[in-house]
Amino acid sequence: MHFTSETSSNGVIERNFTLDEITGVLWSPTSATVGAPLLLFGHAGGMHKKAPGLVASALHSVTTYGFAVAAIDAPGHGDRSRDLQDQQWVEAIHRARAAVEPIAAIGIDYNMSLAERAVPEWQATLDALQALPEIGAEAPVGYGGMTLGVVTGLMLTAVESRIAALSIGGVFVHDALIEAARKITVPVEYRIPWDEDEIDHAAAIALFDAFGSTDKAMHAHPGRHNQVPEYERDSSVRFFARHLGRAADTASD
Amino acid sequence: MHFTSETSSNGVIERNFTLDEITGVLWSPTSATVGAPLLLFGHAGGMHKKAPGLVASALHSVTTYGFAVAAIDAPGHGDRSRDLQDQQWVEAIHRARAAVEPIAAIGIDYNMSLAERAVPEWQATLDALQALPEIGAEAPVGYGGMTLGVVTGLMLTAVESRIAALSIGGVFVHDALIEAARKITVPVEYRIPWDEDEIDHAAAIALFDAFGSTDKAMHAHPGRHNQVPEYERDSSVRFFARHLGRAADTASD
Repeated sequence: MHFTSETSSNGVIERNFTLDEITGVLWSPTSATVGAPLLLFGHAGGMHKKAPGLVASALHSVTTYGFAVAAIDAPGHGDRSRDLQDQQWVEAIHRARAAVEPIAAIGIDYNMSLAERAVPEWQATLDALQALPEIGAEAPVGYGGMTLGVVTGLMLTAVESRIAALSIGGVFVHDALIEAARKITVPVEYRIPWDEDEIDHAAAIALFDAFGSTDKAMHAHPGRHNQVPEYERDSSVRFFARHLGRAADTASD
Repeated sequence: MHFTSETSSNGVIERNFTLDEITGVLWSPTSATVGAPLLLFGHAGGMHKKAPGLVASALHSVTTYGFAVAAIDAPGHGDRSRDLQDQQWVEAIHRARAAVEPIAAIGIDYNMSLAERAVPEWQATLDALQALPEIGAEAPVGYGGMTLGVVTGLMLTAVESRIAALSIGGVFVHDALIEAARKITVPVEYRIPWDEDEIDHAAAIALFDAFGSTDKAMHAHPGRHNQVPEYERDSSVRFFARHLGRAADTASD
């Protein structure tokens, strides 16, 4: 893991890094504590490691709870070059959108391909992060994500025992996700954007029911997946604080 | 409205009151502000105005947010005598429980009868509370309730324009509730105890869909209706704070 830049603002250190082909970013408090929880954030499809909502949640997590937060670009996203097959998928999605046709089928194949490649990348990233003296191997780890980041997160959590809590929202449901969810037993907080035309409510609830976790919560919120209310972002960070063992400095409970 | 007792502890004044046949309680901060939000809490079936969960939420609302909170006993509950017909319903429910038979049908009739009587009682109570100088007619009003308290709350909110926000959880769904929900347009936060055997998930979600509110959220939580997680109680108070306009003194957002 090579840090390529470091800036500091309002109590948060932001460091960009590379790890082989992976491009990522790590946010941590200037007054970092070894062993504080580490959150891995998976961005939505078409976005990148510094998507505005992701950054807002990351900064809130760092400044309010003292967490460290890492995000990496999915293959072909953000600072990474896109290969020919990914380019063809993206063009197919653009064509479907322009023709006002459903994109779910194309999106599912594309996201599954990206997630399969991203899982070992996240595992290598987690290895490297845990080797940093300011994080360490004892830090409890949570994963948060949206859309593509949910697909990656479910595939990752199903095979990676270091992920101890999962907060996700907004995804097309398909069989491979249901299968992954059945293997997951860690606490889950799952958000459904109730006004998203392309998300079928019954399928979304079937995913919730599939999780093997006994401690699982579902939140249906108004709006679409890119209109997550601020109180839901806050709920997600509170969820991680409950399960990863770091109380908020300023929270009332 | 006659106050029959007053005690004070940890910054909260608790006053029992009577209003004709109604028996109730009002919690308010010792450092009360005129016009601070007022919450009306409807207790669950078989419980009373000082049910432990209700009291815990009330004290949290008063001490953390400076709200006033009122609760009244449903007809035949708590400090109120039970009439012959209510007694027969209660006995029928006990017989069904003992025989491990479903109680939903009996419970629905009984709860609807109680709710029809409780609506004018809540309206009279609200009139009396708003006439108190320490509350006043400008205080924004929210309603929170569980099981029987949900039935009463939906019937009340459908006809009472002073209720500006509704936080409810755990109820048998039936047609009259769906009809009431269609008339409700204020913000709603609705909790479904996902592990409650007697609550059908699809029916519970149909009630959520029926609300006329554009700003509505649903939370499925683990456990039964009498196992509401503490973070859900806190979420409910935060919901009221967002919609009734009083920021927490100590909350981080």
